[in-house]
Amino acid sequence: MTKEEEHVLEANENFYHALQELSLEAMEAVWLPADWVRCVHPGWEALEGWEAIRESWQQIFTGTQFMRIIVGVQSVRVEHSMAWVCCTEKISSAATDRFDSTQVQTTNIFQRRDGTWYLVLHHSSHRPAPWPETGAEVVQ
Amino acid sequence: MTKEEEHVLEANENFYHALQELSLEAMEAVWLPADWVRCVHPGWEALEGWEAIRESWQQIFTGTQFMRIIVGVQSVRVEHSMAWVCCTEKISSAATDRFDSTQVQTTNIFQRRDGTWYLVLHHSSHRPAPWPETGAEVVQ
Repeated sequence: MTKEEEHVLEANENFYHALQELSLEAMEAVWLPADWVRCVHPGWEALEGWEAIRESWQQIFTGTQFMRIIVGVQSVRVEHSMAWVCCTEKISSAATDRFDSTQVQTTNIFQRRDGTWYLVLHHSSHRPAPWPETGAEVVQ
Repeated sequence: MTKEEEHVLEANENFYHALQELSLEAMEAVWLPADWVRCVHPGWEALEGWEAIRESWQQIFTGTQFMRIIVGVQSVRVEHSMAWVCCTEKISSAATDRFDSTQVQTTNIFQRRDGTWYLVLHHSSHRPAPWPETGAEVVQ
């Protein structure tokens, strides 16, 4: 693994750290705050621009009490100042009255600016069965 | 739009042309035939390497009699020898005994080699409702 690949994977880890910590501040540090960055949450319509993406994270974090993610990195490719990481995510999350469990397939694209790798695209989608279509359960 | 962006969109169009024509030969000309290229068909597990991806297209083309796709390009970004295109697809397809209609969100990543842009990642996932969960209908 090259140094640059390591740096990209660090940026990728920072993203999942921000997600697990439900930290909007950490999430802001990960993304390039441009009007052309893009995000597809699992089962959502695509979002364009950091403002819309920031709002979506705020909405997700507000509605979540707890989130744990097991990330399986499948590949990392670096090409000049761009890179992309493919990974699987096993997500367990809890809100006030429910517990969710889901598995998704993700493509993350990063861009290097002034020596730092920033997330510019996140496309995440549900993996097929045998994973349950809805993992929602009411907490007794 | 820059010349390079136009070339990337041409490569993107070639991909959808290959798909509509159900042409494995045209599909082979679009992809970089490397062992690290990746493909996520809607609702499928991720595939790695051109051999596995080629087989999947062969399987899809064999099982399909007709396919029409309306592509809505949302964005194209070029960074040195890499580029990515985000688009929506309205897919209508027919097999012997059924007709399917679905809408998906797609991320396509391209890489330039010797002046030609090749597809190196295709991640396609179903868009949320109001589009029907299953668009399958039996043809009378």
